[in-house]
Amino acid sequence: MKINVVKSVLEANDAVAQANRGRLDAAGILALNVTSAPGSGKTSLLEATIPALGEALASAVIVGDLQTTRDAERLGRLAAQVTQINTEGGCHLSAAQVAEALAGLDLADLAFVFIENVGNMVCPAGFDLGEHARVAMLSVPEGDDKVAKYPTLFQPADAIVLNKIDLIGVLDYDTSRVYDDLSKVNTSAPVIEMSVKTGQGLSEWTDWLRARRGAGAG
Amino acid sequence: MKINVVKSVLEANDAVAQANRGRLDAAGILALNVTSAPGSGKTSLLEATIPALGEALASAVIVGDLQTTRDAERLGRLAAQVTQINTEGGCHLSAAQVAEALAGLDLADLAFVFIENVGNMVCPAGFDLGEHARVAMLSVPEGDDKVAKYPTLFQPADAIVLNKIDLIGVLDYDTSRVYDDLSKVNTSAPVIEMSVKTGQGLSEWTDWLRARRGAGAG
Repeated sequence: MKINVVKSVLEANDAVAQANRGRLDAAGILALNVTSAPGSGKTSLLEATIPALGEALASAVIVGDLQTTRDAERLGRLAAQVTQINTEGGCHLSAAQVAEALAGLDLADLAFVFIENVGNMVCPAGFDLGEHARVAMLSVPEGDDKVAKYPTLFQPADAIVLNKIDLIGVLDYDTSRVYDDLSKVNTSAPVIEMSVKTGQGLSEWTDWLRARRGAGAG
Repeated sequence: MKINVVKSVLEANDAVAQANRGRLDAAGILALNVTSAPGSGKTSLLEATIPALGEALASAVIVGDLQTTRDAERLGRLAAQVTQINTEGGCHLSAAQVAEALAGLDLADLAFVFIENVGNMVCPAGFDLGEHARVAMLSVPEGDDKVAKYPTLFQPADAIVLNKIDLIGVLDYDTSRVYDDLSKVNTSAPVIEMSVKTGQGLSEWTDWLRARRGAGAG
């Protein structure tokens, strides 16, 4: 009985996620679900990405947060439209929350919707939000064991961003361990070595975004 | 109806937590519930702490992990006893899991039980495990906004460890922001500025542990 309840919650989420995707498809938008631990640099990545994509490719951001509006305030200076979802303690976004956010956005003329999930390596993994592609971030200071420890975050990812790569000389970090662990859970997603701080990897990332959108996923 | 179910789950957890605490009290052990984001350095902190406490103060570690036994393997080289709990995707430890782990430990002659929770800033906050003190860690590379964004983790903490303080010169990190945010949610817990890597703060931390144990909490 308990299993049925859980199953129906996930089925309900998936149905709403499909509807979100249909709505985004109709508007020609590519939607990305960006997941990582707290502090890997999701907001900073989007702050760098939105201007780099250029004015011809407008972005909206839907940002999930437990309580504050800090990320939304940071992104509001850059993105055409920003919607904050306060999860009030919830550890992931749901498709229904994203549906509500999409209802408040003007989808015309948007090229990308970035959904910045709650900073969490566990909970967001199981919830389809209606995105076209999932991005899993990790950052060098978190340690080189995170792919092995949180495989469910990296398994469904369409792109993997390894951020704060500029700290590799400062910290004891074995990149080959990350690639070894990824080879067991995800061999198709490109790994983009990134430093939002120095700009390394940013053009590789925006190229990937443009190509993915051009491939007609949006 | 759903609210009742959630409430009874938490009530059941609290009852088991009380029983755990009673068991630890009877053995004269101080138990600590160590929480943080993934990669803040919980395992590294315990690796440094256990030898620093000295052989007269033996420690056991109960470590929660989604899948791997990597942390337990690291700690097994140092702690008298290590028990790994695989949460199989669960984003926090529960009192029942800790009860099971305690049943497998030889409590005689132990001074400390460190419970290393799942790396997560959201889920562990609401679950009493039967600890005497809760330790909330954060680390410099995560950014200086984490206390404001995850207040429920820091509110119930008895000690706050700010780790990787050696990176403060390398990163753009405003410590005063952390202290400002803490002043709104927790004014009683000491904040220990730590670098597990350089050893800074380690003796302040072990002094706090010894004092806390001496105060008869265990």
